[in-house]
Order: sequence, then structure tokens, then C-alpha cells
Amino acid sequence: MSALSPLLATLAQRIGAAHVLTDPADMAPYLHEERGLYRGEAPAVLRPGSTEEVAFIVEACARAGVALVPQGGNTGLVGGQMPFGQMLLSLARLDRIRAVDPVDMTMTVEAGCILDKVHAAAEEAGCLFPLHIASQGSCRIGGNLSSNAGGTAVLRYGNARELALGLEVVLADGRVWNGLKRLRKNNAGYDLKQLFLGSEGTLGIITAAVLKLFPQPAQRATAFLAVPDPTAALALLKRLRGEAGDALTTFELMAAFGVETVLKHMPGTVRPLAGAYEWYVLAELSSPTRAFDLGALLEEGLGAAMEAGEVLDAVIATSEAQAANLWRLREDMSEAQKHEGGSIKHDVSVPVSRVPEFLDRALPACLAALPGLRPCPFGHVGDGNIHFNLSQPEGMDKAAFLALWEMFNRIVHDIVTEMDGSIAAEHGIGLLKREELAHYADPVALDLMHRVKAALDPVQTLNPGKVIGVQVG
Amino acid sequence: MSALSPLLATLAQRIGAAHVLTDPADMAPYLHEERGLYRGEAPAVLRPGSTEEVAFIVEACARAGVALVPQGGNTGLVGGQMPFGQMLLSLARLDRIRAVDPVDMTMTVEAGCILDKVHAAAEEAGCLFPLHIASQGSCRIGGNLSSNAGGTAVLRYGNARELALGLEVVLADGRVWNGLKRLRKNNAGYDLKQLFLGSEGTLGIITAAVLKLFPQPAQRATAFLAVPDPTAALALLKRLRGEAGDALTTFELMAAFGVETVLKHMPGTVRPLAGAYEWYVLAELSSPTRAFDLGALLEEGLGAAMEAGEVLDAVIATSEAQAANLWRLREDMSEAQKHEGGSIKHDVSVPVSRVPEFLDRALPACLAALPGLRPCPFGHVGDGNIHFNLSQPEGMDKAAFLALWEMFNRIVHDIVTEMDGSIAAEHGIGLLKREELAHYADPVALDLMHRVKAALDPVQTLNPGKVIGVQVG
Repeated sequence: MSALSPLLATLAQRIGAAHVLTDPADMAPYLHEERGLYRGEAPAVLRPGSTEEVAFIVEACARAGVALVPQGGNTGLVGGQMPFGQMLLSLARLDRIRAVDPVDMTMTVEAGCILDKVHAAAEEAGCLFPLHIASQGSCRIGGNLSSNAGGTAVLRYGNARELALGLEVVLADGRVWNGLKRLRKNNAGYDLKQLFLGSEGTLGIITAAVLKLFPQPAQRATAFLAVPDPTAALALLKRLRGEAGDALTTFELMAAFGVETVLKHMPGTVRPLAGAYEWYVLAELSSPTRAFDLGALLEEGLGAAMEAGEVLDAVIATSEAQAANLWRLREDMSEAQKHEGGSIKHDVSVPVSRVPEFLDRALPACLAALPGLRPCPFGHVGDGNIHFNLSQPEGMDKAAFLALWEMFNRIVHDIVTEMDGSIAAEHGIGLLKREELAHYADPVALDLMHRVKAALDPVQTLNPGKVIGVQVG
Repeated sequence: MSALSPLLATLAQRIGAAHVLTDPADMAPYLHEERGLYRGEAPAVLRPGSTEEVAFIVEACARAGVALVPQGGNTGLVGGQMPFGQMLLSLARLDRIRAVDPVDMTMTVEAGCILDKVHAAAEEAGCLFPLHIASQGSCRIGGNLSSNAGGTAVLRYGNARELALGLEVVLADGRVWNGLKRLRKNNAGYDLKQLFLGSEGTLGIITAAVLKLFPQPAQRATAFLAVPDPTAALALLKRLRGEAGDALTTFELMAAFGVETVLKHMPGTVRPLAGAYEWYVLAELSSPTRAFDLGALLEEGLGAAMEAGEVLDAVIATSEAQAANLWRLREDMSEAQKHEGGSIKHDVSVPVSRVPEFLDRALPACLAALPGLRPCPFGHVGDGNIHFNLSQPEGMDKAAFLALWEMFNRIVHDIVTEMDGSIAAEHGIGLLKREELAHYADPVALDLMHRVKAALDPVQTLNPGKVIGVQVG
């Protein structure tokens, strides 16, 4: 009988023995980290079924001096959801849609709702919840909010932070803060929800949220384009935004290597353009109004862009199936890359106007460091956010390549920092980038973060050692 | 020679004697509070000319145990900018536009820039900065950000908080946090700027900001409508949003009393509709695209709304001058109300769908409390934000009426709180609503606010006693 047995017995009595997992096989799915970068360890996985049960667990653990790691869908890319000896608290059973209100354009959902389920519930009410990321079939909204997820519609709708109107949060001492306001304007004191959005479960555990909804698009127009270079892509972005305004909802840049990798490895994908080019763009217009024809607008814009040399070739989807195929060329990129061996990933952002300069500097710097390297930059160029992924040289030992992770981090993150960018654009810091943050962040900023952590979680009950290190003293 | 003389001498040496005002006549404009609710008192008004000078002042004052009240344009409506014995720190001289970047769609401005100047600089670069409030000719952007200002375009563009990408802030101990990132996505640790946005100068002093810009509208369509009641206004809101999508940028509800008061007192205003009605709406569509005709869209939508009984009569502006006149009926309302004697004001919000219910409850409750009262509710119904102003009965003594402020607060704020609304939608808490916040707020929320304050300003150097009281112990 371990020292934790009395605590576990107390918890089992409250939330049910079936929801206190201690068998390694039962715990395995929660402790397995997708990228294989970490191996989680926990004395138990706790699966509360309500906010009250979460509060009970946190209070009991805080009293016992036992720390907790909250977890949603376990799709995080920086290890934020992995315990290393702490209890794992899964929010998966808190998965009710509490309310959808199409007049207020809000919905109230529990943290464990899978993102796809949130989309479906919004759609059923004739609305749109616009957060779209590759893991939407398994990630959970609490994790999306805790990590301030981005995705492919940020250009128009903003990050997860901008999509939350209210939160319900279990605090580090087990108290519940009910901030589930369905309000568009509220300046009654400090905006406390901002503390918990994006803080990766280190300041509180989000148990429910009020989300902003939008009118459902009545039409879409999707195009796949070859562009000469990233500078041309930016010119095209400016052009399409000027012509289509808010209707430009997606604008993604991709290097040839990524597109070819998808076409090679992902069954059912179809080459969209006859020629081979160095850079591609996926652009989508969508709008709730039928007052004008988005397809015609896009066609006209692309015609002018071709004349101006911003676009080399283009295809506009003429069916939903075609649009879905074009989307796969972008969305399957991370998955396809796995077939090409090891990949060292950077999730960086710079001011939008500096994306070409960033690529012009980072690509040769990385190729010089390791000849044969196959860079796979792609991402949300309209947000200045590039997933600067590096596939290993063909034939190189995968482990030997991955051992260069820190070296490449230094090259890429040095350039990003010099360009006033961010080393963590939309995936967060977690554990993977904690030392990078400590290395690059302004000491004043780090001090403020530690002060906030100490104010909200003074005894380090919640996700200790994530985002910022545990401060001693 | 007062105890402060050595400190004032030190400050004068650093920022120039001309910028340390101690003469009552020189200080008067800074200590005069527009509504006449407060009379400010300060040993000196300090007018630094740079961020470094602000930092010097804060550090010197913190060392000397002297508190500061930051002030922008002195247009705040809740007394947040008023000192009561503290030093007044005016940001007015920090008024440079540091940069405008139309590709990034950002601009970097100093806190003291007047909002109109920010608009003009954005426009010059072919962009839009969409924050519009009645005081834009004299309010300053630092104050707008510190109070998370709202205004008439929140429906489409969000509050001031959503319009800030980065901040530069002088902390309570005089250190400078440089968070002037021009990034659309940045999850490198806690989002520190959120602490300072909307906290009314109690956690740090905003000295500069990176603002989001938007494409400039290429067309506008403005209509003034008579509607049967607030429920019909909501139905119309839903209709127009469905048809125009993001192009619906303003949707303001006004009771007859307010419109009549403007027409009576404000020279040059013109009656827009022949008949007299109980409720009016100002609606505006605007869009950067010329791909469709907003005027035609609005006309069609209003035609259908009239058939559905949502609109009783309507006029669409056919010139900019006409549009400006329609706007004045809404924008001059607070000014016009001054001619009708005392006004007790509430700046409240409820979920959008509950605005009619709120009005149905609050109007009779107030009229029952004081027969002859002339309610003047108006505001941003698309945001659920009503300025529930109450003009005194004709002939009543103004002071006797204003003595009822707390009684009316209790009536209105009780209803708002029961409806899960906010007692401070867009004007903030300041001093005026501090006790109301203490009365209504969840004790857990208040405790969190005090913890944040203690973490960032432990010795109460910045705007002590505003938003939340000074915690002793």
C-alpha cells in the first residue's frame, strides 16, 4: 500500500472506483504522448464526471500536497498534458453541451467536449464555431482554450482566446470560479478568464466555457495556387483581402516538399495542378451572405493576380469533394511527414510582412547546418505563423537526426527572436519549449509570469514545471 | 516646503520643471471631472515625455512611498483617472505614432495619442482602426486600452482588448515590460498584456501599444429605423446579420425620449422620420469590398423586415451628410441629456437575447420608484449593452434627484445581476462602481482580483483604491 492509498480511496469514494485508474494498461492511453517525445508517469488517472468532482479532487490533492496535471484529448504537441509523477486529471467525462443560443450567438460547453462535437452542435443551431485544427476529431475544447489554439481560420475569427466569452474554472485550492457569462461586453473588474486561457492548466483547470458563435457560411470558394515565392504570396494576400474583405477566411502557404509528401503517402489525394512549383497557397473565401458570388470574386481576383505575376497557376474547386481534396493537401501534411523519417518541428511566428525574410534566412541557415535536410515549412501565413518543420536527410539515422533538435531550435529561434517573433505561435510552451522560453524571454516578462503563478497557485498544485519552471525560494 | 519637495525636485530635474505642475490653475484641467461627480486633488501633475521618464517617475515615487494615478484624456466616466491626494501622471505628452504597417495591418502608438489621431494615421495608410466612441476627439488610446473601451463597432470588431496585439507597460516598481509584439499568434507563456488591458491603471501604466488594423471600408449604408419594440429590434438584428454577415457593423437601439431630446437641444439635427415612434434603431453596413451593393442589400433587408412587422418606418442615407445627421441622433444623446437636468446613468449588459426582458423589468421598476422619471435607455443592443440613463422628472431639484443615485443603482443592478449581466459593460469600475462591484461580485472573483493586484503592485503605488478597494493586512 503506497502513501497515496488513503487519498486514492477518498477520491474513489467520491467519483467512483471505476474512474480512478491505476492499472498500467488502463492508464496507457493517457500517458502515451503522440510524438513519442515523452513517456508520462502517474500514480493514477482520475476521471471526474462533473465540475464538483474536479473541485473535490483538486482540494483533496492540494491538502495532501499532491500535484495534478489536467488533460483534455491528449493531443497537445508540447507535452503540457503529460504527468511526470503527478496525478493525471482527465476532463474527458465532462462532455456535455450545456446550452446553445442562436440569438445570443453563444454556446456553453464542458471542457471535455471533443471539438468536432462542438462544431456539430453549433451547426445544428444554424451557427458556426470557427476553430479548426487538424486534431479536431479527438482534441477537447478545454485543451484548446488552455493552449489558446489557433488553426486555419484565425485570419478571420481569431485564436481560441478570442472565441471565449466566459469560463468556469477550478482553482488551485479547489474553489470554483464561475465566470460563465454570456456577455459581449463586461468590464466589471479584471478580466479573470484571460488568466486561464492559454496558461496550459498551470493557473486553474477550465471545466466549462461560453463560446462565441458566428453566422454559418452560406457559400464557400476554395482555390489551390502555385505562387513564385512567399513575397508573391503576401502580395496575393493583400489583394484578396482588399477585394473580399472578411470573406477571406483561410490563406495557407506550403513549400513543394510538403505537398509532394502528401501526394506520395496519403491515399486518395490528387495532384491539383499539372506543373511542379516551389510554393503553393490554399485560399478560401466563405461568407454568410449570398448577396454576391464568392466564386466569381475569387476567379476575378486570381485573374488579376496572374497578370501581376503573383500567381503562376490556379485551380478553383467546383465541388465539395474537390474542395475537400485541396484541403487534404494542407491538413494531411504533418501526418504525411511521418513517412519521411524524423521531423524537427518549430511553431514560430513573425510579423506577417516579415515571413519572406524569415524563410530567406532560416532555410539556408538550416541547410548549411545539415546538407541533405528537407525543410517542410507550411502554415498560416496570414497570421505570420509558420510551422517550420525539418524532415531528416534521406537515409540518415532517425535518432541521430532527432539528436540535432536543440541545434536546429537554436538556429531557428535565434532568427525568430531577432525578427521580433515568437518561438511558440499556437502550440504553446508545455515542457518542450520551457527552457527555450527561459532562454529567450525578457526577464521582466518571466518575473511577471512567476508572480502570477505564485498568486494563483502558490504551492504548485497545478501542472508544476510546465510553461515556466518551478521557482524555488 | 512640503515633505514632497525633494521628490518633486528630483522629478523636475529629470522631466523638466515645466512638466511638474503644482499651481492650482495649471492643474485644474487634470483635476476637473467632466460629470462633476468628483473633485480631484493632487500634490502635483507630472507630464513625462517618454516611456523612460514614466519609468523614472514611477520608480522614484515607489521608493518614496508616494502613489500615482495615471491619466489619458481625462474622459473616463467612472472616476478612474481622478487622484485623491496621489500624484497625477498624465500620459498626454507621449503622443507619437511610432509606426504604421499596412502589410501587417498593425500600428504602434504611444498611450497619449488622441483616438482621432490614431484614426487619421490609420486612414492615411489606407487602413481602418475601428474603435469609435463619443469622446474620440479628446480621449487618448492608453485610456481606451486601460478601460477596455467599447463603442459603436464592437459588434463587428470587438472591444479595445481585442484590438491590441502588444503593449509596453511601466510596472509598479518602475521596470518597463516591452511587449510590443506585432504578432497575430503568440503563445510564448502567459499573455501578459491581458493583465493591463481593462485594469484601469491599477496593475501597470500602458505607455505604448501595437494595434490591429483592418481594411478600410469601400462603401457604407446607414439607416435610421422606427421599430415597434426591443423584441422586434432583435429580430431585425438577426435578419440583417444573416443577410449581410460581417458587413453589419453598427446596430444601436434608442428610446424615443433620447431621440427627441437630441432633436430639441442639438443645433442642426434634423428629424429623420415623419412619424413619432417609441423605439428607434441606427443600423450601418460597411465593407471593404465593392463586390456587392450594400445599399441595395440594406434596402432589400429592410423591405422584408417591414413586411414582417419588425420595422415601422425607415430612412436610408443617400449622402454622407445625411448619414452624419443620422449618426448625430445617436452620438449626441449624452450631451443632449444634460439639457434635461440630472441624469443617473447605468452602463449595463445582459445576454443579447435578454435585452427586451431587461427593459421590460427595469423600466417599470424605475418608474414605480419615482413617478415622472424620464428613462433614456439607448446603446449597443447587438452587444447586449444598454446605457440605462434616467433623466430627472421635469421641475425636480437636481441635487435631490442625484441623491437617489444609489437607490436606482440598486434597482437596476439587482435586475442585471439576476439576469446574469454586468453592472459595468464598457465604462469600467473606477471609483464610481467600486462598492457596487464589491456588493455584487462573486467573492471568489474578488479574491482573485486582490491576488493579482498584490502580485503586480504589492505596495499600492498604482491607482490605489480604484476597481477594487485597498486590502489591508
